[in-house]
Amino acid sequence: MSSAPAERNGTGPPPRGGGRDAITAAARESFAERGYHGTSIRDIARRAGLSLSALYYWHPSKQHLLAALIEESTHDYFQRCDDALRGTGDDPVDRLDALVRVTVEYRVARQVESNISTLEWRNLEPENRERLEGLRRSATRLWADIIADGVARGAFHIQHPDDARRAIVAACNAIAQWYEPGGDITLPQLAERYAAIALRIVDHRA
Amino acid sequence: MSSAPAERNGTGPPPRGGGRDAITAAARESFAERGYHGTSIRDIARRAGLSLSALYYWHPSKQHLLAALIEESTHDYFQRCDDALRGTGDDPVDRLDALVRVTVEYRVARQVESNISTLEWRNLEPENRERLEGLRRSATRLWADIIADGVARGAFHIQHPDDARRAIVAACNAIAQWYEPGGDITLPQLAERYAAIALRIVDHRA
Repeated sequence: MSSAPAERNGTGPPPRGGGRDAITAAARESFAERGYHGTSIRDIARRAGLSLSALYYWHPSKQHLLAALIEESTHDYFQRCDDALRGTGDDPVDRLDALVRVTVEYRVARQVESNISTLEWRNLEPENRERLEGLRRSATRLWADIIADGVARGAFHIQHPDDARRAIVAACNAIAQWYEPGGDITLPQLAERYAAIALRIVDHRA
Repeated sequence: MSSAPAERNGTGPPPRGGGRDAITAAARESFAERGYHGTSIRDIARRAGLSLSALYYWHPSKQHLLAALIEESTHDYFQRCDDALRGTGDDPVDRLDALVRVTVEYRVARQVESNISTLEWRNLEPENRERLEGLRRSATRLWADIIADGVARGAFHIQHPDDARRAIVAACNAIAQWYEPGGDITLPQLAERYAAIALRIVDHRA
């Protein structure tokens, strides 16, 4: 597949009914509840209120739907990072703070997609996996550059920046697994706490 | 199921052939390569070099095998924690250090089981999940007690011990996803680095 989220599979006018958004929502719910292997393309069509042929108009396969879901949510993540970092100066402390906050917010806002991406990554076919791994590497660079800059400027006092990066990312990513919206911890509190944890991980000293 | 790893399903003398260890190894490899839903009980029998009826002698179902695998590796983790903490005094700094090191070592030694446990947890049937969640809660208490003790004694300067615990555990657990044995980082180096990261997360000051 190429740039899945903007693409459609069929020709002619789109069929009546739920359309792309309904299909995406149905795929997300089905994969989350039953897993990729436990979901059939028929389940998704039924949930979206569409015929199978109407679904095929948009997506040629279950694999295409999985890859499109992960790709769309990853692009959403990059867009959020870009917006947050563009509004931040070049101080690596501020930039790490901003990146942690936007990552925490993303893990809560896109909790379902985050977990699908973790659990179903291995079910991506090689071509899709390779393309999406390219996006993952871009995210890694985003973190690595900020941490390297903080070390170079003497703001972060760590010897092993890759380990610090992995620890911060793992802590932020795990939020999707345990956080309960509407529970004891509000999202601003959570973002605040994780920003502080990240600055301790990189051994920030003012 | 009850205490699966010590139990066998059939009656009479065990069948000739691979036996329990071969079945466990076959199930581990199959689940790791193809996932729980992608694996059939026939695949496991074939890989173990056993007939289906010989396999059923030991394990009544694929579900039983998954639960037994997760349970056995979790007990292994507790045994390692117990051994490590028994050889450590009551200083919470030493105890957190020891618990991080043993967790890092476990995530490398039982890398395959760690990933199966993460990826297939949702495929546990309710009864098995409930029992194994009890084990998970015990592990959470182990971390929580040491961190609470460090805070109470003034060694750890954090306001949100649950967040520190979650961040440390997430960082250690993620090792199973990226660590390459035989790669650039040796296991002792990895354990050392993560012990240092954990002490920064709890804001340890001597």
